Amino acid sequence: MTQRLHHIGYIVASVEESLPRFLASAGAVQVSEIFEDPLQKARVVFLAPPDSSGVLLELVAPTEPASPVSAAAARGGGLHHLCYEVGDLDAHLAAMRSRKAVLIRPAKPAVAFGGRRIAWMITPEKLVLEFLEAPPHNSASSV
Amino acid sequence: MTQRLHHIGYIVASVEESLPRFLASAGAVQVSEIFEDPLQKARVVFLAPPDSSGVLLELVAPTEPASPVSAAAARGGGLHHLCYEVGDLDAHLAAMRSRKAVLIRPAKPAVAFGGRRIAWMITPEKLVLEFLEAPPHNSASSV
Repeated sequence: MTQRLHHIGYIVASVEESLPRFLASAGAVQVSEIFEDPLQKARVVFLAPPDSSGVLLELVAPTEPASPVSAAAARGGGLHHLCYEVGDLDAHLAAMRSRKAVLIRPAKPAVAFGGRRIAWMITPEKLVLEFLEAPPHNSASSV
Repeated sequence: MTQRLHHIGYIVASVEESLPRFLASAGAVQVSEIFEDPLQKARVVFLAPPDSSGVLLELVAPTEPASPVSAAAARGGGLHHLCYEVGDLDAHLAAMRSRKAVLIRPAKPAVAFGGRRIAWMITPEKLVLEFLEAPPHNSASSV
């Protein structure tokens, strides 16, 4: 099972309001447009902090009360999930299920990743994990 | 300002109880002993998930009600802070202050890092950051 920490998700009330403040306080660079994903009911943007590990920070805001992140945003937001990029998404989800992690949102194409699929799981210790399928070889991906 | 994401801090009620469960569900390897830091009023242990970025996961539990992480543990714990290793800790803290981050715990030697100093800041967006001074050149460090 190989994986790479791709980004850390941070919940905010408004991506547009928080983005300039995060860029300033973290010394980060914006590395994507602001995406709205109707399947995830969220708006997201990716920042690159000055960090030689290459791990991105993702700001996530709900777009409607039924968004999976609305409750966390209402509690004030903050650190929310870790996203790992994996080579074989379906095999990875199966392996995580065998470790008692629970699928909370099945694999769906994500606009923020050029249609690459993401899925969500939660471990018995309540760690929320996003898994992102790795891009096909030789493909370009902005984030 | 160079930095490297060293670990992600996750608050638990008991390091001893959570450690085996995290190892199992994350497929992680324990890479340190369990340290008790009287200055931080916390017990901590480091895990390495299968992750080519090399970022560690730290489990943190309070050792007393006055611990800085007691309130977070009482709320159920979870993702808590990002720790960046930096080349010049004092210069880094000064740079972060100029970006309106607030020092919440000043630099102190940490037993979990062989006496290397750590300091804590919070950004205006409430992101809790730990800064760890990089080891001297050619020194060995377990985590």
